[in-house]
Amino acid sequence: MTGIITKTEALIQVLRDRLARRALGPGDRLPSIRRFAETMNVSPSTVVEAYDRLAAEGVIRARRGAGFYVADANMPPMKVAQMGASRDRDIDPFWVSRQALSAAPGSLQPGCGWLPEAWMPQNALRKGLRALAKADGTVLTNYAGVQVPDTLLRVLQTRFAEESLPVAPDQIMLTGCASQALDLICRLFLNPGDTVLVDDPGYFNFHALLRAHRVQIAGVPHGPAGPDLDAFAAALQQGPRLYITNSALHNPTGATISPQVAYRVLSLAAKQDLIIVEDDTFADLEPEPSPRLAVLDGLNRVLRIGGFSKTLSASLRCGHVAGRSDWIEALIDLQVATSFGGPSPVAAELLAGVLTGGSYRKHLADLHRRLSLARKRVTAHLAPLGIAPILQPRGGFYLWCRFPDGIDTAEIARHCLGDGIILAPGNVFSPTESASRFMRFNVAQMDSPRIYAALQAAMA
Amino acid sequence: MTGIITKTEALIQVLRDRLARRALGPGDRLPSIRRFAETMNVSPSTVVEAYDRLAAEGVIRARRGAGFYVADANMPPMKVAQMGASRDRDIDPFWVSRQALSAAPGSLQPGCGWLPEAWMPQNALRKGLRALAKADGTVLTNYAGVQVPDTLLRVLQTRFAEESLPVAPDQIMLTGCASQALDLICRLFLNPGDTVLVDDPGYFNFHALLRAHRVQIAGVPHGPAGPDLDAFAAALQQGPRLYITNSALHNPTGATISPQVAYRVLSLAAKQDLIIVEDDTFADLEPEPSPRLAVLDGLNRVLRIGGFSKTLSASLRCGHVAGRSDWIEALIDLQVATSFGGPSPVAAELLAGVLTGGSYRKHLADLHRRLSLARKRVTAHLAPLGIAPILQPRGGFYLWCRFPDGIDTAEIARHCLGDGIILAPGNVFSPTESASRFMRFNVAQMDSPRIYAALQAAMA
Repeated sequence: MTGIITKTEALIQVLRDRLARRALGPGDRLPSIRRFAETMNVSPSTVVEAYDRLAAEGVIRARRGAGFYVADANMPPMKVAQMGASRDRDIDPFWVSRQALSAAPGSLQPGCGWLPEAWMPQNALRKGLRALAKADGTVLTNYAGVQVPDTLLRVLQTRFAEESLPVAPDQIMLTGCASQALDLICRLFLNPGDTVLVDDPGYFNFHALLRAHRVQIAGVPHGPAGPDLDAFAAALQQGPRLYITNSALHNPTGATISPQVAYRVLSLAAKQDLIIVEDDTFADLEPEPSPRLAVLDGLNRVLRIGGFSKTLSASLRCGHVAGRSDWIEALIDLQVATSFGGPSPVAAELLAGVLTGGSYRKHLADLHRRLSLARKRVTAHLAPLGIAPILQPRGGFYLWCRFPDGIDTAEIARHCLGDGIILAPGNVFSPTESASRFMRFNVAQMDSPRIYAALQAAMA
Repeated sequence: MTGIITKTEALIQVLRDRLARRALGPGDRLPSIRRFAETMNVSPSTVVEAYDRLAAEGVIRARRGAGFYVADANMPPMKVAQMGASRDRDIDPFWVSRQALSAAPGSLQPGCGWLPEAWMPQNALRKGLRALAKADGTVLTNYAGVQVPDTLLRVLQTRFAEESLPVAPDQIMLTGCASQALDLICRLFLNPGDTVLVDDPGYFNFHALLRAHRVQIAGVPHGPAGPDLDAFAAALQQGPRLYITNSALHNPTGATISPQVAYRVLSLAAKQDLIIVEDDTFADLEPEPSPRLAVLDGLNRVLRIGGFSKTLSASLRCGHVAGRSDWIEALIDLQVATSFGGPSPVAAELLAGVLTGGSYRKHLADLHRRLSLARKRVTAHLAPLGIAPILQPRGGFYLWCRFPDGIDTAEIARHCLGDGIILAPGNVFSPTESASRFMRFNVAQMDSPRIYAALQAAMA
């Protein structure tokens, strides 16, 4: 029995699918009528009809003059079937994480967010482990205390002091990683339905995390000098609680905020009492220092997240957050409630050992040199395919590249996955799905000629 | 300017304080009028007046025939000042965690939930660290994949198989600890305002965690053979989503569920489609096996949490959850979103190394013997003070003890804290605050005569 499905019905089905797999969550804004009509190649009146019918069902609701939103009420909790069903089909914010974290041996991963193991300071880690075998029994067997262990605290304070940012011991805490830090911050400050500003494009896992908090994500276009100030000012009118950003070596574009934009962002945020989360995970990949919101602000309304997953080891699971002492105190309480304390003392001790061992700065210098060459080499290899980075970053391993007209990078990614190559197509970074012509490449994972051949084949 | 405060105003202030520091959260039921009147030593009409005035303000609301509840709407997010203000004053579910995790060197900790470092297998850990120094670079530097690493998977599967519980690889995942496992489960299944059943008394940090999820906590009286079945059946009428329990070596009582109670709990849960979370953190402290809900149920509606923090190392931060494969898949997605993958591969490898190293079973046998002696010794030392365990547990390090008439153990705990002794008073374990005459003692932390002297002085 094959019935005739009208365009409206087809559109409703598309929306139901997005809701079912939480590509649209409670409180999320639906695409504007005009944009959705263009995207789906239907008339605006078809979109209006589809929206009206879903609104009549209570699935979405209209806000006067402000578009349509997914209804908060009656949403079931994020369910198994809904989250799992899309695993093999959809290019959503989970796509890259899933593929990269469960990659088969031998896969190539130009889409992943880490360096190859051979680029990491393995000898320093092995030396650190041998030293750890002689550590105090407390470190080896006890729960983490709520204070940062002394050695690691001194290392972190010294690093902050080099940026002229004084940080007291009660202004800093350890977390398992940047995502966990952000998760605690969301728990502290957000209610379901709140609005959070993110960069567009921006790190996809932030979107997945915010969805788990059932908040509304608003994208601020991100350019070579940081967020677009007009768009940022306009977005503030929505009354967001948080703005999450990378100031330096922005993921995925590699951009670095300019001093003028940094100053203006802070001024605008102050007027609206907006809290800013500055994720500085990529800090050590920067060859020279650049402006930081947290430094200008003096940890007043900026919470700064950091860690060593990208340059030392992602296996240790030990990051940190610095911020106002009363906020840090509340975040520690939440961490005790949800994970009974901070990350592994074994990991913290090993991290401190490597950071104070004397070889880390040289390792970074080598890394900067090596990555600079890799960025140039990959740019040269991509050029004949008509693929070009929108800017040459000051450091790091990402290149955010534009593809030729008419190419949808999600299709390219799907095609290349068949060849065992995991890519990071643009739209997984874009809450407005406006980056289908872009792709993020990790230059440290692109030595194999197979990658360029597969890209060429997929584009053909 | 000192005005005269009426009893009603004083009562309102008490309630406002509890709301401010989240001792009462959105959706929580307020104490019954009769009980609150007794507790506060005022007339029931005073309580009625206080409740009515708060209800008029919209702070709480009445449900016909079902008492008063904290209003859901307009609650600010859990805030700094509210969570932090009570730090030094109140004996709330956070009290023991805070005190124990930030204990000054030299403090005595009969209230803590772990063994002294000297009781832990330090040599095996040191040997494991030296072996780890030669491990594959992937283990040392990469993010955790979404699958459980092979060696650890085999160890866990073998342990489950010894209990006749077959567990497929897609039915198990690693987490940072038991609390983090429970946290992910709550994210998957709960909406704010849902009801969750816990044991009364039960592990205090579960209450803190559930509060962070803004759900309503309903206590089920827990006795020597497990939960009270009549109370459990009655509580099911509230339509709870989850029941969280320890079947063996229950924290804090040390009780073990009987086969009959286990069967009945599962049968009742099946009728109401209730999901059960069985926290089995204390499993390895049991000298002989006892019934498990997860085993009877075959991981159908029971999720089983486990780990090695109590017997091997709490510093590694590596626990696990076993359950239905579709649930595990969804939990892994949530873990990727909120912590970008599982716990440290370094920790998982070290754990697997110690567990397969050959000395762990002997270590457990030694521990069982040592704890059995300690339980007897501490029982004998407490007897002259009129303090007696309500039951002699089959294993583990907890004794749940009743104090003589008229003693409030919160007062004892507050007093002893001044002597540098951290205790775990009964009411931190009781969602109904009905355990003020009880205290949980950790027998492995009670060698010092100072503890008994301080208890005696505090009781005098």
